Amino acid sequence: MTKIMAINAGSSSLKFQLFNMPKEEIITKGVIERIGFKDAFFKIMVKGREVQEVKPILSHEEAVKLLLKKLTQLNIIHSLNEIDGVGHRVVHGGEMFEDSAIVDENVLQRIEELAELAPLHNRANAIGIRAFQSVLPNVTQVAVFDTAFHQSMPPSSYLYSLPYEYYEKYRIRKYGFHGTSHKYVSRRAAQLLRRPIKDLRLISCHLGNGASITAIQGGKSVDTSMGFTPLAGVTMGTRSGDIDPALIPFIMEKTGKTAEEVIDILNKESGLLGLSGVSSDLRDIQESVEQQHNHRAELALEVFASKIHEYIGSYAAKMAGVDAIIFTAGIGTNSDFIRAKILTGLEFMGVYWDPNLNRINGKEAFINYPHSPVKVLIIPTNEEVMIARDVVRLEKDFLNESYEANEVIESSSY
Amino acid sequence: MTKIMAINAGSSSLKFQLFNMPKEEIITKGVIERIGFKDAFFKIMVKGREVQEVKPILSHEEAVKLLLKKLTQLNIIHSLNEIDGVGHRVVHGGEMFEDSAIVDENVLQRIEELAELAPLHNRANAIGIRAFQSVLPNVTQVAVFDTAFHQSMPPSSYLYSLPYEYYEKYRIRKYGFHGTSHKYVSRRAAQLLRRPIKDLRLISCHLGNGASITAIQGGKSVDTSMGFTPLAGVTMGTRSGDIDPALIPFIMEKTGKTAEEVIDILNKESGLLGLSGVSSDLRDIQESVEQQHNHRAELALEVFASKIHEYIGSYAAKMAGVDAIIFTAGIGTNSDFIRAKILTGLEFMGVYWDPNLNRINGKEAFINYPHSPVKVLIIPTNEEVMIARDVVRLEKDFLNESYEANEVIESSSY
Repeated sequence: MTKIMAINAGSSSLKFQLFNMPKEEIITKGVIERIGFKDAFFKIMVKGREVQEVKPILSHEEAVKLLLKKLTQLNIIHSLNEIDGVGHRVVHGGEMFEDSAIVDENVLQRIEELAELAPLHNRANAIGIRAFQSVLPNVTQVAVFDTAFHQSMPPSSYLYSLPYEYYEKYRIRKYGFHGTSHKYVSRRAAQLLRRPIKDLRLISCHLGNGASITAIQGGKSVDTSMGFTPLAGVTMGTRSGDIDPALIPFIMEKTGKTAEEVIDILNKESGLLGLSGVSSDLRDIQESVEQQHNHRAELALEVFASKIHEYIGSYAAKMAGVDAIIFTAGIGTNSDFIRAKILTGLEFMGVYWDPNLNRINGKEAFINYPHSPVKVLIIPTNEEVMIARDVVRLEKDFLNESYEANEVIESSSY
Repeated sequence: MTKIMAINAGSSSLKFQLFNMPKEEIITKGVIERIGFKDAFFKIMVKGREVQEVKPILSHEEAVKLLLKKLTQLNIIHSLNEIDGVGHRVVHGGEMFEDSAIVDENVLQRIEELAELAPLHNRANAIGIRAFQSVLPNVTQVAVFDTAFHQSMPPSSYLYSLPYEYYEKYRIRKYGFHGTSHKYVSRRAAQLLRRPIKDLRLISCHLGNGASITAIQGGKSVDTSMGFTPLAGVTMGTRSGDIDPALIPFIMEKTGKTAEEVIDILNKESGLLGLSGVSSDLRDIQESVEQQHNHRAELALEVFASKIHEYIGSYAAKMAGVDAIIFTAGIGTNSDFIRAKILTGLEFMGVYWDPNLNRINGKEAFINYPHSPVKVLIIPTNEEVMIARDVVRLEKDFLNESYEANEVIESSSY
């Protein structure tokens, strides 16, 4: 049995989960928020109970030290030696990383270089990794990239119709995000469908505050709705998704803002929030429709659902059909209302969903009629367990490779 | 029998076609190019033969005068009194025009106001109208808008997921273009299918140097791929279509260009041209693939076809199915190669096309197998005849309304 830590570090936060592998049991989980402030917030689960603390935590390294101290102090583990590996969520792996990677100085440098493509995220991720390296120098650190799963996309999916040298010179292409989540639910779907993943065409709808749709053929991402950045694709909580690019200079001229300020509005004041004027949270918007018959709130729901509905049609076309549609993340798992809106009118492509089964929320379920050629599944995502699995897999590969390398050396010494 | 002129005025050009209505016979057609220059070029068909002339034509008004003089001089008509109406293509009708409109000073002012949304086009269109007004002051002028057909789109199709006030204040929304073409082919498709248009769900693919896909339900546009401007949607000859909007500031920073310069590149140096590096013309690109196995040319074709393929899936989902797919405009009508690429893999939604029939190019044809639930048609577009029809229809409506108005006045005088 090995204990693996899964880490998701933001610019001022650090989420953690400690697993017993390969059982995938959660030993503890929690979060540290407001890192860099005097009133930072630390929360950790101890035997099903939440322990909280507010205190100054001025750096990620301090946060990591505190976390590790608490693990033994609160008797969650006996010694730090029990931790066999740490997996880190890293947002951008560019074209360099098609898979998770054991962190060495070279990998870390590349993650920092890729900060150009995801400035806020990659820097924070790298800081998290360095903090763990300095406190646990002998424990394997693994980087798990949000983009890696989508590196299997063909060029016809990832290339924009721009001057080709933009791709060559500036690495401008579709990268896609939420890869760890899309990968997890696709694997889980194959298990639930009892079919080999290589035979399946899946459309996975990760619908949270950020949202992306992925076409997965034979277990590989062949297209995804997010793009060069997580702004593209469907309507999200505060993000616009795709718009006519010619709108950027038009909005700049009308509002007197810079291009970056406009993109900021597209990221933070658009989407469900911008349309409804009520909230970025789907539940608030639904309430506003039900209680106040708010017209703009209604429109926001309509736009949100219809974009996803249309992506499903488009990705079914991409794969020449689809075997199963998967709903995951906050909205996908919990909003029967939105799922119903998205699924209505897909009968022409063989999607027959059961309104009674669709009432299930928050857990794994099939919600299609038994005779439906296309299955529809709810699968709560689990990016943390996917991170922990990758740490175990890469450590094992690494040991095997070292072993093989030794063998080669020995045999060549003959 | 009435003679109607259909006009398409650009900033330095004027295309014309003179029809015998309602027979829809072309009496003559031609083009004036390089208006404003000393070596302007005039071309007109006389009884199947082309007459050309190079001479100074310094304004649109001069061009119109020359055209009208030539009509009688070349014995195409006996007198200008034979012209019963002139229809003008106008690119942008905003939200003001849901249909073509008889031009009065008010309409003309609105067209000029809307130049904000289509600077190059609307100004040229208005100049063309004014030129005809001054030379033929007693002839009805009708404006036929590229956007009008799409005004039937529901808000969930035309609203971007932006702050709602951008729609209210700046009229930012999806307008769509090529409306006259999409309308023409949808009407013609209903005739060929021998079914009432109100029962049909059609997807119309207008694939020329500009390209747009439209979902047409019950004869009305319910969604279209172009957006606020003709830049959005699928890959085109030199236009990028949809890209991640966050790319605009990224490209600005990398290239040192302004937002408008970047949009200019997206309009003029992207699309098939940018991807292939060969040409914006599909035929050149295909040749480059066939003769030089040019990899980038191959990619360009792949991207071009796959975007359209996916839009078809997405619009089928939008309408909960589709009865017929229509191909029109230069590429749509003439490239069996691209049609084959687009149609391959749509069997899951009931599209069974016949590779032998698909070899037909340039004329009206069904290219589906007889048993195919979804029909596939080639229909050469005819925007000019649609313009001439609208002139006749509006003149008739106008006379009826005047008649009814008179009746009301008479009856109210009792």
